[in-house]
Amino acid sequence: MTPARRLPGSHLALGPGPEFDRIRNIIGVLGPQAGGLGDDCGLVEQKDGFLALSTDVSVEGVHFRFDWITSKEAGWRATAAALSDLAAEAADPIGVLCALTMPDSSPESRLLEIMAGVRDAAAAVEAQVLGGDLSSGPVWSVAVTVFGRALQPITRRGAEVGNGLWVTGRLGGARAALHAWLHGRQPAAGARSRFAHPQPRIAAGRWLAQHGATAMIDLSDGLAGDARHLAAASGLAVKINLDSLPLAEQVRSEALALGVSEAQFAAEGGEDYELLVSLPESFAAADAFARDCGIPLTRIGEAARGNGVEFVLAGRSIDLHGFSHFG
Amino acid sequence: MTPARRLPGSHLALGPGPEFDRIRNIIGVLGPQAGGLGDDCGLVEQKDGFLALSTDVSVEGVHFRFDWITSKEAGWRATAAALSDLAAEAADPIGVLCALTMPDSSPESRLLEIMAGVRDAAAAVEAQVLGGDLSSGPVWSVAVTVFGRALQPITRRGAEVGNGLWVTGRLGGARAALHAWLHGRQPAAGARSRFAHPQPRIAAGRWLAQHGATAMIDLSDGLAGDARHLAAASGLAVKINLDSLPLAEQVRSEALALGVSEAQFAAEGGEDYELLVSLPESFAAADAFARDCGIPLTRIGEAARGNGVEFVLAGRSIDLHGFSHFG
Repeated sequence: MTPARRLPGSHLALGPGPEFDRIRNIIGVLGPQAGGLGDDCGLVEQKDGFLALSTDVSVEGVHFRFDWITSKEAGWRATAAALSDLAAEAADPIGVLCALTMPDSSPESRLLEIMAGVRDAAAAVEAQVLGGDLSSGPVWSVAVTVFGRALQPITRRGAEVGNGLWVTGRLGGARAALHAWLHGRQPAAGARSRFAHPQPRIAAGRWLAQHGATAMIDLSDGLAGDARHLAAASGLAVKINLDSLPLAEQVRSEALALGVSEAQFAAEGGEDYELLVSLPESFAAADAFARDCGIPLTRIGEAARGNGVEFVLAGRSIDLHGFSHFG
Repeated sequence: MTPARRLPGSHLALGPGPEFDRIRNIIGVLGPQAGGLGDDCGLVEQKDGFLALSTDVSVEGVHFRFDWITSKEAGWRATAAALSDLAAEAADPIGVLCALTMPDSSPESRLLEIMAGVRDAAAAVEAQVLGGDLSSGPVWSVAVTVFGRALQPITRRGAEVGNGLWVTGRLGGARAALHAWLHGRQPAAGARSRFAHPQPRIAAGRWLAQHGATAMIDLSDGLAGDARHLAAASGLAVKINLDSLPLAEQVRSEALALGVSEAQFAAEGGEDYELLVSLPESFAAADAFARDCGIPLTRIGEAARGNGVEFVLAGRSIDLHGFSHFG
């Protein structure tokens, strides 16, 4: 990565889609006040590296429901989702701030349980809770802002022609749980955990940065959407071999119930909070990654000259859509 | 101020009240993960001073209504409210992050106007917009996180026995506008502006820090509530002479309509975003402040041994309440 590639102050191109047209329009309105938007984190240069910041809001009825997950899990999940952006930047978390809205009819016990989840997610990455705000509102919402320090941040824009594309962990588990709930079934424990208790891949992000990662993005919108962001930001084409996707528990049965291939189900599922990373063609340390980080690292594609993302399943190109929330 | 007084990691005492009991309970749940809560900003020590951070959520129907203020004003106001916490810490703003929820039925134009207000508030203090998130939700909410740098942050805890208590600007204008709207009247332009377009007192905060401020807090909950926080955090008693309060436009007429004294109306009114500051008894530069900052600085009381806040009007102690939102 050249320094220019990660210079704060210049925006990263986003993939296609009306959701991202909206963000492009916001960047247009912000004009010179916008500070390098379109990456997982905002970056501020400091004497010793960069400060990385990100904000993420989770809304009851849009991102989660209390008949699916506990209050504590809602707090964990909202915080983990924000911390995942630090992971994708290869940043070390420092702190968390949390602005909540709660219905007047809700008991204080729910607030305290949500904050226990925020606490546990912060503690798991050695971050502190450094501020908060609380308002009444028609539903619960948890807006979490995280910040950390990155000596050499990895943005979405550094992928190079010939790089391999890899993913951490296994995909589709969060969508499998969501799909089960939405159809009146209880998800299996593993899939439920992927939705209710996602793990921000902080250690994995740092490991990958130390082993040559050229670009990185966390899988919040789903592989189908996020691969397009990485391709657009890096200004190249990406080809994803869907047959090689590492699949989470229960993806097979939920994909069957929906009538789509399991790879499509996983690639279109959001909120797995795994990392998509480009690495030099010579990278051959996936076993060391698995040993050090406790999760698999799987090669699923490569970067080439051109633009856009091609998804190939059983030798045929297929069209995939990004993830939308259920609410 | 001794270094121990502004050491991050220890919590500041808050004033009495059920809203603040709730925050005390949250701090209890967070345990060792809580990083010095109870001040206007969270502080993180760096090589050259401190990073100061704060988060603040504004909710449609609780903090504002679109039949009162424009979308752009809603964006300005939410951002100014958060920036006001940096002012109270004597911090230099660097950046702003903004997590919004919007109803699916709302036009994108409203989103862009809100973001234009965020942009203008950030530009007014030379901060950049460094991140954001957007979700659907039942009402509009704007959660703004701000951060800045403070060489010598001023917390709420440094007031000393014998210090004078001073306020910037004029009080009660935001409440006067709110009271007018709630009773079907249009507020006068000056009062309306105090509600719709508050000014974060960034330059004033820095000026006061450079001229001996020992403690500072922004007036978001109202003088009645915020003076209690300053007294509790500093571990002393505060006496406020309500007859000396500098009053904003339209406070007199709205107080008359409500049937309370204008000083009580102003002291119980929130969201003026002025600063309450303690200064050494020897401080005599209010004229210089007014010349440099363009707003008055008025002595309204003093700090003494003891605890709690006494509000005196026409020679008699009176009981005052903190501000609650209308929603």
